[in-house]
Amino acid sequence: MTAGTFGHLGPETLALFTDRYELSMMQGYVNQGHTPDATFSLFFRSLPDDRGYLVAAGLEQVVAAVEELSFGDRALAYLERTGFDDDFLDYLAGFEFGGEIRAVPEGTVVFPDEPIVEVTGSLVEAQLLETLVLNQVGFQSLVATKAARMRDVVERYGDEQTLVDFGSRRAHGVDAGLKAARAAYVGGFDGTSNVAAGEAFGIPTYGTMAHSWVQSFPTEREAFETFLAEYGDDSTLLIDTYDTVGGAELAKEVAADMGVDLRGVRLDSGDLVALSKAVDEILPDVDQFISSGMDEYAIREFLTSGGVGAGFGPGTALTTSEDAPALDIVYKLVAVERDGEMRPSMKLSSGKVTYPGGKRVGRVEQGGTFVRDVLGRRDEEVDGRDILETVVVDGDVVSDRPSLDAIRAVTRRNVRALPDGVRAIDDPERYEVSVSDALAAETDALRERLESRAI
Amino acid sequence: MTAGTFGHLGPETLALFTDRYELSMMQGYVNQGHTPDATFSLFFRSLPDDRGYLVAAGLEQVVAAVEELSFGDRALAYLERTGFDDDFLDYLAGFEFGGEIRAVPEGTVVFPDEPIVEVTGSLVEAQLLETLVLNQVGFQSLVATKAARMRDVVERYGDEQTLVDFGSRRAHGVDAGLKAARAAYVGGFDGTSNVAAGEAFGIPTYGTMAHSWVQSFPTEREAFETFLAEYGDDSTLLIDTYDTVGGAELAKEVAADMGVDLRGVRLDSGDLVALSKAVDEILPDVDQFISSGMDEYAIREFLTSGGVGAGFGPGTALTTSEDAPALDIVYKLVAVERDGEMRPSMKLSSGKVTYPGGKRVGRVEQGGTFVRDVLGRRDEEVDGRDILETVVVDGDVVSDRPSLDAIRAVTRRNVRALPDGVRAIDDPERYEVSVSDALAAETDALRERLESRAI
Repeated sequence: MTAGTFGHLGPETLALFTDRYELSMMQGYVNQGHTPDATFSLFFRSLPDDRGYLVAAGLEQVVAAVEELSFGDRALAYLERTGFDDDFLDYLAGFEFGGEIRAVPEGTVVFPDEPIVEVTGSLVEAQLLETLVLNQVGFQSLVATKAARMRDVVERYGDEQTLVDFGSRRAHGVDAGLKAARAAYVGGFDGTSNVAAGEAFGIPTYGTMAHSWVQSFPTEREAFETFLAEYGDDSTLLIDTYDTVGGAELAKEVAADMGVDLRGVRLDSGDLVALSKAVDEILPDVDQFISSGMDEYAIREFLTSGGVGAGFGPGTALTTSEDAPALDIVYKLVAVERDGEMRPSMKLSSGKVTYPGGKRVGRVEQGGTFVRDVLGRRDEEVDGRDILETVVVDGDVVSDRPSLDAIRAVTRRNVRALPDGVRAIDDPERYEVSVSDALAAETDALRERLESRAI
Repeated sequence: MTAGTFGHLGPETLALFTDRYELSMMQGYVNQGHTPDATFSLFFRSLPDDRGYLVAAGLEQVVAAVEELSFGDRALAYLERTGFDDDFLDYLAGFEFGGEIRAVPEGTVVFPDEPIVEVTGSLVEAQLLETLVLNQVGFQSLVATKAARMRDVVERYGDEQTLVDFGSRRAHGVDAGLKAARAAYVGGFDGTSNVAAGEAFGIPTYGTMAHSWVQSFPTEREAFETFLAEYGDDSTLLIDTYDTVGGAELAKEVAADMGVDLRGVRLDSGDLVALSKAVDEILPDVDQFISSGMDEYAIREFLTSGGVGAGFGPGTALTTSEDAPALDIVYKLVAVERDGEMRPSMKLSSGKVTYPGGKRVGRVEQGGTFVRDVLGRRDEEVDGRDILETVVVDGDVVSDRPSLDAIRAVTRRNVRALPDGVRAIDDPERYEVSVSDALAAETDALRERLESRAI
């Protein structure tokens, strides 16, 4: 058993988190002397069902990748063993990203075809980033979106209930557990149960007790007494191990006997609306924390049915973005240098349009509400404020790194600025994204040239 | 930007990949002197839709966790900052798992309620493992199952086509990309595009070229010529950037001009069946590699419709287990020591039964086919061979670590031994798992005792 089974994500081998063809192409570019500048655009083609918007997240990791990616001895030795040649390995040994990155700030709402990240640099270096950048931005954006929907439901139907990510155990691996905690916070959650995420990102951590605590004692009374002896007024007791209402009565009795001002109880099974009302009769001054099967739909149902809860702990549905576990997010070459000039590029593909060239996205606001976006050429003026910002120039980070709290505030502001119909969690309205005349004309002209092979 | 954004999964903080309540409970157990032995069982409650079996995977990571988990200075400093007390931190500083683990070998098919892993040790140490073990086994088992279904479809309808994981870019974070590559190999894939997974696990890596290669040249001809100049007979050309049939003709022409014996072409869009037939007319001796939207259903459709392909590159559907991104996998306390004796334990919960106690799973075979399983008490004899093996005793690994190739062979043998109806990918038959009389009686008796609170 090697430490590598968990520990292979450090600086030594992170650069290998790429598809083999990226390296094969890079070797070909370097060895064949084909190293024009190029622009790649990261965007998604369509929103998952029942999503009216996507909250962009994971951009901090894009920037980190640019700063951290390098090929150390262990990576180079592996590539040598698997057939890459010395000249290329020498190139990789000196690899450092020296290009430009434009991106929308984390927490920004984005729509199909809009660039979330645009990378411009040598074709070789821009190619390398593809796999890692898609992997980080796609997943975190899905989870941030799911979280933002839950926060929005609480804002509409609830009373500022606490939302805590409980889903690490069902997340797809350890990085997913950590990044889901981060993305949930970006989306408006208050914290996570994941201690490593707390350590890594400074996110508040929350926790109560498991059924195993209660079961491990001869009686539920002893279980409660022992927990209160340890944690006193800070205690949240899980009361549904044997019988929720009986558990609430016992919690009340034990707390009174011990002079403890019980902070909370957790309900994790059964008819949560009915049980929470019954528990509220018994423990009116104690916060109820509701878990088990929570997502935006379950929270709305709970709140609109009169359930009593001070907080919710969504898990699986959040960290796997269970109803939309994948996003059709892509990283496409949109421009390439020829004769010293950047020229728009596109693939011809039935049904899928990739608009060529570097872009801007104008977001038009009226009275504090986003009303439409305009996708335009980077070098033209379009209506609205361009949501893309330049974050890296010549390989150096030129923007301040916002705090997670600042990003979280961006998300909230963005979601609140959306038309109501776009915020809906069932069959949302489609937000209008138009293509500027100049970009449409360029797309058509390029398609014609490609179709006639007069490229 | 800290290295921590990617590099926090090394030995320094891996032990923090746990839910906060695990540590809160552990502190309570230690400080209150409640440290009986306990057995936890990891199992899932039901199969996802259209799944007849689950391929167990990720057990190597369970064992690695047991061997590697320790609390270093960075972890302890964080826990101190977040309120854990000195006595408990002293305990953690000396933490080492000293218990027993029984598990089914990786590649074994398993069914609802059957323990995949059983951990017996001090309640404190067994509690800690919960989050990490669920996270690793649940995800890898989902992907191994998805992969095994694709391999099985190829076995039934195809001709030993190569299967390569292309899904790292859509996986949920970097660990998911790596572990999906591992699990896909366990399930019967031939390799992965992920270079880091190749390095970490010794899995063969595969790659062709992207559309960006083709687009980056003034003409498709130059793109093909340059690639062939670099890779010669080893080349696989992507031919659908502008027009698939035209691309095949061009590939033929360029290869002939350059005297290259082209190895393969890749098709990534359009009507793949029709296009692959057309391409086969043009390049009958060249392997066609088919990607875009591949899963077990698309592969079956392609093969049964006469598509021509030597290999498939499933991506998103595989690495996110897209149609079943979560498994209701749990880690439940099933026995706890009292007065020097292990006693069965369970939670009372409406609709969900957790069978108490340590268990064995007898698998009954007839003529090389698995016909039924019997879930029994660990201390009884039941029909069939017990599929659980002891892998860790007193914290030491006592079993040999099988190679990934050996695990892959176990999967294949297991899937082939299933009844045909259970292997089906649409609405499969339910495999019979019965509960032994002794276990059923114990469950009923315990439920009665709990319901009468005479525990």
